[in-house]
Amino acid sequence: MKRHAFFISDGTGITAEALGHSLLAQFESIEFEQSTLPYINDLTKANEVVEKINALAETSGNKPIVFDTIVDQEIRETISKANCFNVDIFSTFLNPLEQELGMGSSYSVGKFHAGADNDKYRSRIDAVNYALDNDDGSRIKYYDQADIILVGVSRSGKTPTCLYLALQFGIKAANYPLTEEDLNQLSLPEPLKAHKKKLFGLTIDPERLAAIRNTRRANSRYASLNQCYYEIEEVEMLYQQESIPFLNTTDLSVEEISTKIMLDSNLSRKI
Amino acid sequence: MKRHAFFISDGTGITAEALGHSLLAQFESIEFEQSTLPYINDLTKANEVVEKINALAETSGNKPIVFDTIVDQEIRETISKANCFNVDIFSTFLNPLEQELGMGSSYSVGKFHAGADNDKYRSRIDAVNYALDNDDGSRIKYYDQADIILVGVSRSGKTPTCLYLALQFGIKAANYPLTEEDLNQLSLPEPLKAHKKKLFGLTIDPERLAAIRNTRRANSRYASLNQCYYEIEEVEMLYQQESIPFLNTTDLSVEEISTKIMLDSNLSRKI
Repeated sequence: MKRHAFFISDGTGITAEALGHSLLAQFESIEFEQSTLPYINDLTKANEVVEKINALAETSGNKPIVFDTIVDQEIRETISKANCFNVDIFSTFLNPLEQELGMGSSYSVGKFHAGADNDKYRSRIDAVNYALDNDDGSRIKYYDQADIILVGVSRSGKTPTCLYLALQFGIKAANYPLTEEDLNQLSLPEPLKAHKKKLFGLTIDPERLAAIRNTRRANSRYASLNQCYYEIEEVEMLYQQESIPFLNTTDLSVEEISTKIMLDSNLSRKI
Repeated sequence: MKRHAFFISDGTGITAEALGHSLLAQFESIEFEQSTLPYINDLTKANEVVEKINALAETSGNKPIVFDTIVDQEIRETISKANCFNVDIFSTFLNPLEQELGMGSSYSVGKFHAGADNDKYRSRIDAVNYALDNDDGSRIKYYDQADIILVGVSRSGKTPTCLYLALQFGIKAANYPLTEEDLNQLSLPEPLKAHKKKLFGLTIDPERLAAIRNTRRANSRYASLNQCYYEIEEVEMLYQQESIPFLNTTDLSVEEISTKIMLDSNLSRKI
């Protein structure tokens, strides 16, 4: 069974999409053909969307599911008249909130990450630059500025996690690769010893690591299952020996890894 | 006036937080003290949250506002019994959706970006690596693999946007800086000419550019208002002359810039 689903917004559509995905994920046996339609911010665009939805309803024989976070009432009402099942997020929740808070809402476009706030913008860009400049052990003298330093073997997910922590939370995250030499000696590299409290380890199932490394350097010793088993066993021993908190990233998305690190390290969002 | 707000989830909390921020942004005259509580996935944690909420309700004299995306019914009911104004996102929308779709939902934890899907995980990490390897004109021979190539003067926002496009959408985005020499000649750099259809330009208000550059190299010619005015005037002329679509990033967040680029370039999410 297949159904069409739309995530419609007068802004980026990120909120409507995130909420819609979460809800639709509860219906595993249905395949959803999903489209995000951002910046539907005037009636002309809204009417085009309505035509699109109505055409799909006719050809598929089913009402498309429409999640929207549109603030403007006229645009929202236009969309709601389409031949669809409309999950209207703002109108559902704004009225009860207005009552609880004892005032009308401003009905401005929901810029929950407004770039107009220069301080927040700058600390986010600073954090991204910090992650780029302090990636993969490339520079070690600014570790005093780090909020956290991720460690782990090559290809265990350090770089994407650092970038996500910077973009999503404004956290300054450096990362340092633990090499075979560090693991043979079962000791922390010299540059990390003074910052032990900031360290957080990543680990991953050896089979998965081997698969990832094979796409990088096929059939190398580096990508061999033996080597991956060895490195992961040693790195987890090192984490335990040095009391470094660590996380297995195998079944986790970058969002999940980042959120768990924030939680375990007691870090707070800076943007 | 100040109120407390919580975003509570059994997963990362990203959906509850995004929706909650959007809704609360509609009440500009109220200051909200906001906390995100991810991974509230058992009754012990739920009861701790309830105690926290109840204590705040008592000391502040106001009910905290609680947005939750918890799927487990027992945990959700526990939270809802706290002394709070509860915006219960799943229970509000799941029942009507079940009726429309003619089946019960699976009530699994809403992993909307589940890392368990290895193909999606890999294409996202590939896109991040692509952005890192092809940042700032550092490498030009893989532009045939690019989904898009951002161009612009130094510090106009190219790198964070490429990384966001990679992490959020799995888009392979390279970027290439337009230098004073390119601008003096009013012509595209040689490596870009063969890929003109993939180019997308960023621009920014000169005052803002000068402020950003001043935090990098204070009082330099590079950061001077004159220089920034010159570069922005020339770069916009170059975009027009070469028919390169472009966007002014001054008042936009990285999310907004990325979404608008996706829309204008007809790119679709790859993850």
